[in-house]
Amino acid sequence: EKNFFLVAGPCVVESEELIMEVADKVSGICKRLGIPYVFKSSYRKANRTSANSFTGIGDETALQLVKKVGETYGLPTTSDIHAHDEAAPAAKYVDILQIPAFLCRQTDLLIAAAETGKVVNVKKGQFLSGPSMKFAVDKILKAGNEKIILTERGTTFGYQDLVVDYRNIPWMQEHGAPVVMDCTHSLQQPNQTSGVTGGNPQMIGTVAKAAIAAGADGLFIETHPNPGVAKSDGANMLRLDLLEGLLEQLVKLRKAVL
Amino acid sequence: EKNFFLVAGPCVVESEELIMEVADKVSGICKRLGIPYVFKSSYRKANRTSANSFTGIGDETALQLVKKVGETYGLPTTSDIHAHDEAAPAAKYVDILQIPAFLCRQTDLLIAAAETGKVVNVKKGQFLSGPSMKFAVDKILKAGNEKIILTERGTTFGYQDLVVDYRNIPWMQEHGAPVVMDCTHSLQQPNQTSGVTGGNPQMIGTVAKAAIAAGADGLFIETHPNPGVAKSDGANMLRLDLLEGLLEQLVKLRKAVL
Amino acid sequence: EKNFFLVAGPCVVESEELIMEVADKVSGICKRLGIPYVFKSSYRKANRTSANSFTGIGDETALQLVKKVGETYGLPTTSDIHAHDEAAPAAKYVDILQIPAFLCRQTDLLIAAAETGKVVNVKKGQFLSGPSMKFAVDKILKAGNEKIILTERGTTFGYQDLVVDYRNIPWMQEHGAPVVMDCTHSLQQPNQTSGVTGGNPQMIGTVAKAAIAAGADGLFIETHPNPGVAKSDGANMLRLDLLEGLLEQLVKLRKAVL
Amino acid sequence: EKNFFLVAGPCVVESEELIMEVADKVSGICKRLGIPYVFKSSYRKANRTSANSFTGIGDETALQLVKKVGETYGLPTTSDIHAHDEAAPAAKYVDILQIPAFLCRQTDLLIAAAETGKVVNVKKGQFLSGPSMKFAVDKILKAGNEKIILTERGTTFGYQDLVVDYRNIPWMQEHGAPVVMDCTHSLQQPNQTSGVTGGNPQMIGTVAKAAIAAGADGLFIETHPNPGVAKSDGANMLRLDLLEGLLEQLVKLRKAVL
Repeated sequence: EKNFFLVAGPCVVESEELIMEVADKVSGICKRLGIPYVFKSSYRKANRTSANSFTGIGDETALQLVKKVGETYGLPTTSDIHAHDEAAPAAKYVDILQIPAFLCRQTDLLIAAAETGKVVNVKKGQFLSGPSMKFAVDKILKAGNEKIILTERGTTFGYQDLVVDYRNIPWMQEHGAPVVMDCTHSLQQPNQTSGVTGGNPQMIGTVAKAAIAAGADGLFIETHPNPGVAKSDGANMLRLDLLEGLLEQLVKLRKAVL
Repeated sequence: EKNFFLVAGPCVVESEELIMEVADKVSGICKRLGIPYVFKSSYRKANRTSANSFTGIGDETALQLVKKVGETYGLPTTSDIHAHDEAAPAAKYVDILQIPAFLCRQTDLLIAAAETGKVVNVKKGQFLSGPSMKFAVDKILKAGNEKIILTERGTTFGYQDLVVDYRNIPWMQEHGAPVVMDCTHSLQQPNQTSGVTGGNPQMIGTVAKAAIAAGADGLFIETHPNPGVAKSDGANMLRLDLLEGLLEQLVKLRKAVL
Repeated sequence: EKNFFLVAGPCVVESEELIMEVADKVSGICKRLGIPYVFKSSYRKANRTSANSFTGIGDETALQLVKKVGETYGLPTTSDIHAHDEAAPAAKYVDILQIPAFLCRQTDLLIAAAETGKVVNVKKGQFLSGPSMKFAVDKILKAGNEKIILTERGTTFGYQDLVVDYRNIPWMQEHGAPVVMDCTHSLQQPNQTSGVTGGNPQMIGTVAKAAIAAGADGLFIETHPNPGVAKSDGANMLRLDLLEGLLEQLVKLRKAVL
Repeated sequence: EKNFFLVAGPCVVESEELIMEVADKVSGICKRLGIPYVFKSSYRKANRTSANSFTGIGDETALQLVKKVGETYGLPTTSDIHAHDEAAPAAKYVDILQIPAFLCRQTDLLIAAAETGKVVNVKKGQFLSGPSMKFAVDKILKAGNEKIILTERGTTFGYQDLVVDYRNIPWMQEHGAPVVMDCTHSLQQPNQTSGVTGGNPQMIGTVAKAAIAAGADGLFIETHPNPGVAKSDGANMLRLDLLEGLLEQLVKLRKAVL
C-alpha cells in the first residue's frame, strides 16, 4: 500500500526555533500516519512582489538550519533556488532543489539544478500547461538527471486569482515524474493593490482532497504555527494545528483511491 | 450513510430504443450500488453551435419518451428548457427542470421554472463565479420555490477550453442547495473552427473523483452506448460500458470522504 | 469618406424625459460631427444579476417611447430582446434588434429576430471567440436575413473582470458584417459580491480609441446625464457631457485610419 | 510634436550579416519617418520551450555585434538578460537592458540591471497586472535608477493563447514610465504540443494600431527578412518588407492621437 508523500514547512526560514517546532510536529504526525515527509523552507525569497518584503535571515545561515532540521529529525529537505549559481551551493545542504514556477522555463537554472545530481522539483508556471512541462523534464533528463518531481500550483485566471486545473495531474504524470499538488500557493490571490499576495486558506482541504482523488503522488502544504505573524505568505499557509486532522482525512481518501 | 446521486443519460432523445437501453443499464447499476438515479435526456437542443446540427425528434414526442422512461424504471427524470414558455409544458413530463448555463441569468426563465413547483437545477454560467449563483438562487426562492440544485460545468479558460474550479462546490453549497458536478460538459472544448464542440472524455474519471472528494452532492454524466455516432456531444459523453467501473470507484471514494 | 457609426443612449428606458434629453444631445453632436447615430435604450432588463434590480417601466410603454425618440429626432433605434416571442412585438417599434451576449447561441431567438426582417445586432458572448460568431451569422442568414451587425463586448477574464480582445474586430469582419465595439459593457466588473455589476468608466476612451484604430465600423456607448443615479449599469456608463469631446477625438482618429 | 519610438530587430543575433541588414533597412525607414529607433536583438535565448532550440552564437560574440550595429548606424541598442550576473557584462555593450516577462519579479535581476545605470526595460509578466508593475518600478527606483521603460506583451488566456489588455497602457503609464507595446510576442501561441511557440503575425498591424491609439509611447516589433527561416520566434516576427507601410500608417495615427 503506497501512501502519498508530503512536502511541508514554513514558507521561509524565519528562525531556528520556528523551523524546529514545525519539523517536530509535522514529522511526528507523518510518522504516525505513514506519510513520507520532506521538510521544506525557503532560505531566501527572491521574487517577492514588493521590495519592502522580508527576504530571509541570510542564505548560508538559513541553509545550515534547514540541514540541521534534516539531521535532527531524519528528514529529507528541500528549498527553492532562483539562479544557476545558487544550485551548487544549495545542493550542499538540501536533498531536493525546487525550481520556482516563474522560472520553470529558464534553461540554465534547470541544467544547473540537474547537474547537482539532487532531485529537482519543478513547479509548473502559472502560464504553462501540464503537457508543456514535458520540455522542462527533457531539459533535466538531457543534463543527465532522472530524479524529477513536478508540482502544480495553479494557473493565471484573471489578474487576481489562480485556478487549479486537476487535469494537470494525469497530464504531468505522463512525463514519467511523480506529481505534487501545492495546496497553499495555488490558493494565492496575486496582483493585490497592497503589494501583498492574498490567499484563501479555508480552501486548502478542498484542494488537497481533490488532488488526492485525482491521483496526485504528493502534497505540498506550507504551514506555520501562527500564519498571521508569518514573514511571507501568511495569507495562505495552513495553521499548524489544523494539519493533523486534514492529513488523517487524506490518508483515508488515498486508500479509497488506490 | 449518504451516497451521492447521479444525473445521467444520453445528451439528447435520439430514439425510444436508445433512452430505454441507457435507462435500463444505468438504473440497474445504480440500484446495485445504492446511488439515487435521475434520468436525463434533452428533448431539444436550443443552442447548438451550428444551425446544421441535430436539434431533436420533436418536443412533445421526446418529452413523452422521457416520461415513459421514468414510469418504466421508476426514476425521476430531467430535461433542460430554454425559454420561459417551455417551463410549464416541460413540467408536465419531467421532475426536474434544468436551466442551461448560458441562460442562468435570465430572470424570466428562472421564475417560470420556479413557478412550476418542480425542482430547478441551474447550471452555473461559464462566465459566473460560484458565489454569484446566490442571485440565481434568490430569484427562484423569491418565486416561491425552495427545491433548487446547482451544477458546476466549467468556466471559460481561453476560447477553446474550459477549466473546472472545485472551489465552486463549497462556494455554491453555501447557498443552501445540493451541488452537482457535470463531469462531461465541463470537459468540452468550445469554439472549435469545425462548429462542433470538442471534448476530452478520458478525463471524466479525474473530474468525477475530484468532485466527490471536494464534497459534491451529485454527479452529472452524459453517457451513450456509442458516443461516436451520437447526435450531440459525441465528443465528451462517457461510453456506457465504462460507467459501472467508474461508479464503483466513486462510491468507495464517497465513503472515505464522509 | 466613411465615418464610424454610433449606437448610444441610456442603458434602460427610465422615463420619457431621460431618453429625450439624451437623444437630443447626442443627435446634435453626431449631426455636427457627421456620425450616423442609432438611438439605443433597453425596454426591459431580463438578466440583471439580482432579482431586486430595476427591470423597466413596462415593455409596451418603453418601446413606444423609443419609437417616439426615433420619430422626433429622425433616428434609427434599437433595443435588446430576450426570448423568441419578444422579436415580433419589439420589431414594431425599433429598427435594429439586439441579441444579448449571453443569448448569442440561442437558435430560436436568432431565427425569430431574423424573421422580422429587421437588422439583427448580435453581441458576442463572453465565452465565445470572434471566429465562432460565424455560426450565429449563419443561423441568421439561413433564416433569410442578411442585415447583420456583430458586437464585441469583452470576454470572461477570471470571475470579476472582462478583457477586450481586439483581434475579434478583424476576425468578426471576416464574417461579412460590420463590427461594433461596445465600449461600456466591455468595462464591466461582473460577479461582484454586492450583486451589482461594477465598472471602469475612466477607460471608455481607451477602449473606443483602440477599437477605431483596429478598424471597428461602429461604437456602442451607453451614456447618461448622471450615471450615479441611473437605474442600471450606472457603474459603467459615460457621463453625457463627456461624449462630445471623446467623439471629436475619435472622428480625427478614424480619418487617420482610413 | 512627439512621435512614438520603435524597438525593433531580429529576435536573436543569428549572424552579423542578418543584424546589419535589418539595422540598415529599419534605421533608414525610421529616419525618413522621424521615429526614434532602438536596435534590438537577443544575444542569447535562455528560456526556449525546448532544450533542442537554438540559443545563440555565443554571448560575447553576439554582444559585440550588437554594439557594432549601434556604432555603425548611430543607434541605441538593447538586449535581454536572464540572471543577475549577466547585467554588468551586457551593460558594456548595450544601452537598454531588457528584463524578460517571466523574470519581472526576480528582485536580484532587477537590482543588478538597475545598478548598471543603463535604462531598464521590464516586460510585464503574462501573469501580472499593469498596476502590479508598480512594484517592479519601485525595486529599480530603490536601487537608484530612474531610467525605466515598461512593456506590455500579453497575458495568459487559456494555455495556448495570449490576450493583450490595452488598459495596461494607461495603468502602467501611471507608474511614471514610458510604456511600450510588444506587437509580436503578444501574438504568440504558447504551449503548443510541438514545443515551438506559434504565432499570428497577420495581426501585428491590429495590435500596433490599437496600442498607438491607446497612447503607447513606443512599439516593439521583431522583424526578419525571412521569418520562415529564422532561428527563433519565426512564427510571430514581421516580414521586414512589411514594416515600412505599417510604420507610415502608425505615424499618421499617432498624429491624430496627440
